[in-house]
Amino acid sequence: MHGYADRRDEFHTRLRRIEGQVRGVQKMVEDDRYCIDILTQISSISRALRGVAVGLLDEHVRHCVADAITEGHEAGDEKIAEAMDAIQRLVKS
Amino acid sequence: MHGYADRRDEFHTRLRRIEGQVRGVQKMVEDDRYCIDILTQISSISRALRGVAVGLLDEHVRHCVADAITEGHEAGDEKIAEAMDAIQRLVKS
Amino acid sequence: MHGYADRRDEFHTRLRRIEGQVRGVQKMVEDDRYCIDILTQISSISRALRGVAVGLLDEHVRHCVADAITEGHEAGDEKIAEAMDAIQRLVKS
Amino acid sequence: MHGYADRRDEFHTRLRRIEGQVRGVQKMVEDDRYCIDILTQISSISRALRGVAVGLLDEHVRHCVADAITEGHEAGDEKIAEAMDAIQRLVKS
Repeated sequence: MHGYADRRDEFHTRLRRIEGQVRGVQKMVEDDRYCIDILTQISSISRALRGVAVGLLDEHVRHCVADAITEGHEAGDEKIAEAMDAIQRLVKS
Repeated sequence: MHGYADRRDEFHTRLRRIEGQVRGVQKMVEDDRYCIDILTQISSISRALRGVAVGLLDEHVRHCVADAITEGHEAGDEKIAEAMDAIQRLVKS
Repeated sequence: MHGYADRRDEFHTRLRRIEGQVRGVQKMVEDDRYCIDILTQISSISRALRGVAVGLLDEHVRHCVADAITEGHEAGDEKIAEAMDAIQRLVKS
Repeated sequence: MHGYADRRDEFHTRLRRIEGQVRGVQKMVEDDRYCIDILTQISSISRALRGVAVGLLDEHVRHCVADAITEGHEAGDEKIAEAMDAIQRLVKS
């Protein structure tokens, strides 16, 4: 079981809301809605996705990474390197 | 009819693929998949969303903004200000 | 003369302030200041840089791109493509 | 002494190069250089700054945060919360 287990329902709900927002944007495109309004909606989805990512990362560091560090030097180093790679991808995405 | 009309089907298809990716992430959360793998997937969705936003913006500038500029000074200024606001939101999101 | 000529002094002043902030961060590193405080400072510099970039882009679209569009179809298309490339780099950077 | 002590010279050198790049952009503005070329340069500075931030964060997690986690639950939690705040600011900046 992974670190985010306690907040699984919360993340799931947030992702379903994001799915609904993406479907809303599809409908806006079908209905030929004004481009700028669609962009505003996409910016809001991006922020919501990033919020989920930061939340998951928080749980991951607080559980998986912290446990690995407590376990010992090498296990900790590996988990930290992996988490830093994920952070870098997130910062750039 | 708005500026992105020629590429409406393309944008719609890309947004449906993004919707599928968001559903895939929900499934990963349900299945208690490894946090870092979920984050990688979210970064990829963010990039895809941003790609759609930049594509829509491109069409918007090429059509709506360019038409407004051709129409006259004031119409152009207004559309440019509106587009710059959208770009700023996009850069920050 | 380029589009940002009217605001050249403003941009210059903002860039000098940013230079001062970067020097401040060097000093923090020399003085072995707390890592998180340095990161806060770097986030503030990134925001300031992005503000200058968006300001320059605004002037560029309002002048160079708008002039090219008024000049004719091909000149406008070329300038729009170039500006969109810059926006994409900015969004990703 | 903080976590980045081993790489202090490296970070200092990178920040001095960034300072030089910012001065280069000031010169470009003074010389009325083409807006798009200035934007390209600013995007490159933003990437370089972000690289320093991620490097500092990496050292911080690997040392300060890991030490606090080893020390005990509460110390670790506090450091993780602080680091996550910095990551969130970085992701948004």
